[in-house]
Amino acid sequence: MQEITSLKNPKVALWKTLKDRKGRKATGTFLVEGRKMVEEAIASGFEIDALLVQDDYGYDCPPVHCAVYRMPAHVIAAVCDTKTPQGIAAVVKMKQIELRSGKLIALDGVQDPGNVGTIIRTADCAGIDGIVLTEQCADVYSPKVLRATMGSIFRMPMTVTADLPAFLKAFVQEGGSVISSQLDGTPFYERTDVAEAFCLVIGNEGNGVSDEVQATATHRLKLPMRGGAESLNAAVAAGIMMYDLTR
Amino acid sequence: MQEITSLKNPKVALWKTLKDRKGRKATGTFLVEGRKMVEEAIASGFEIDALLVQDDYGYDCPPVHCAVYRMPAHVIAAVCDTKTPQGIAAVVKMKQIELRSGKLIALDGVQDPGNVGTIIRTADCAGIDGIVLTEQCADVYSPKVLRATMGSIFRMPMTVTADLPAFLKAFVQEGGSVISSQLDGTPFYERTDVAEAFCLVIGNEGNGVSDEVQATATHRLKLPMRGGAESLNAAVAAGIMMYDLTR
Repeated sequence: MQEITSLKNPKVALWKTLKDRKGRKATGTFLVEGRKMVEEAIASGFEIDALLVQDDYGYDCPPVHCAVYRMPAHVIAAVCDTKTPQGIAAVVKMKQIELRSGKLIALDGVQDPGNVGTIIRTADCAGIDGIVLTEQCADVYSPKVLRATMGSIFRMPMTVTADLPAFLKAFVQEGGSVISSQLDGTPFYERTDVAEAFCLVIGNEGNGVSDEVQATATHRLKLPMRGGAESLNAAVAAGIMMYDLTR
Repeated sequence: MQEITSLKNPKVALWKTLKDRKGRKATGTFLVEGRKMVEEAIASGFEIDALLVQDDYGYDCPPVHCAVYRMPAHVIAAVCDTKTPQGIAAVVKMKQIELRSGKLIALDGVQDPGNVGTIIRTADCAGIDGIVLTEQCADVYSPKVLRATMGSIFRMPMTVTADLPAFLKAFVQEGGSVISSQLDGTPFYERTDVAEAFCLVIGNEGNGVSDEVQATATHRLKLPMRGGAESLNAAVAAGIMMYDLTR
């Protein structure tokens, strides 16, 4: 257990950089806040770099194999993103998992953090095996995405790819189906058979699935739009399709 | 066309009250902001009380049968909720539509404005006939809900009820199915037949469907939870079930 008392402590300065994607990328770590997320992180098998605990934290500190730092409220508040931190936070090492087969979701430039987090949570509920994200997506380790995942971030294998079309081409070559969700697709419920291994692609909120990715698809599908609305929210559309594909 | 130049104009003071549920209830009106929402309001057949246009609004003003007020940027900004208003807004009269049959959704105390708005949008996409809300739900005319509906607020018949259990009892007596979505329900995809007329009930984010409402249900169902997550986001769960029930 180490005591930190000053905002000028170099560790505090380092942890503060985790609020930005750049700082997270440079260190390969991210910060999770609050009792529930910290416990999920420890239980998940993700490597924990440091545990940050407020002086007057009212619970037992969970057992961890890492350095534990105690600090006053104003210091932990400076590190945390939430306005009222819950007195505990953890610095966690990122983990990339190589995904090749199974039931997958790919996010092709989904930019709203709430959508990305909700899709990760829904994929966990639906029994999806993993998520592939392009570099244009909202950063999965940003505070907003982490909150929206409700802890599913620690259970859902994820990989970020610089070349989604190449990934999908290889996936199809190994016998998988690639399902592109797009507004000019054929009706979702009238689709031809989908292979056991599939990858459902969800596009950017404004522009949809990119042309290069569409070109790799074995199925181009559209959910029925019966009323006057133009489109579904991306996370809702992803949920409807994931649950139907895995039912 | 009337000119308003001062923040002290009594009309401005009245419109500012529309930011709160109390002010909306007292006047029976609500404010929509931006070109798209204003055009949807006019096209919908909702009665428009007033059109508010900024001095230097760069588009033609849409034709309306109501008073039109021109005002400088700082005045319209004081009335609007968004930080950067788009130079046009409309004061619209609320409309309650009595719902008795058809394919309905009931919201039993859904409190997050984003969830309520997204469910209205999704219901419009799925071809649902109407939405019944309890008084404990987020106000459908609040700025956050309106934004999340993406205009579906003007297409989806809605009614607010003080007694949802009584509404549902009558619905069942007329031959309809009431489907309660709850965590201890039977598996959703193994459900017994649902009648042509149904009402899907979505519960509060923390507490689920209330006991009094559960007691009226003909079907108590739960979506499969295959991974480690405890629950789906309420709007995502609603979307999955709506689309499967109407497919």
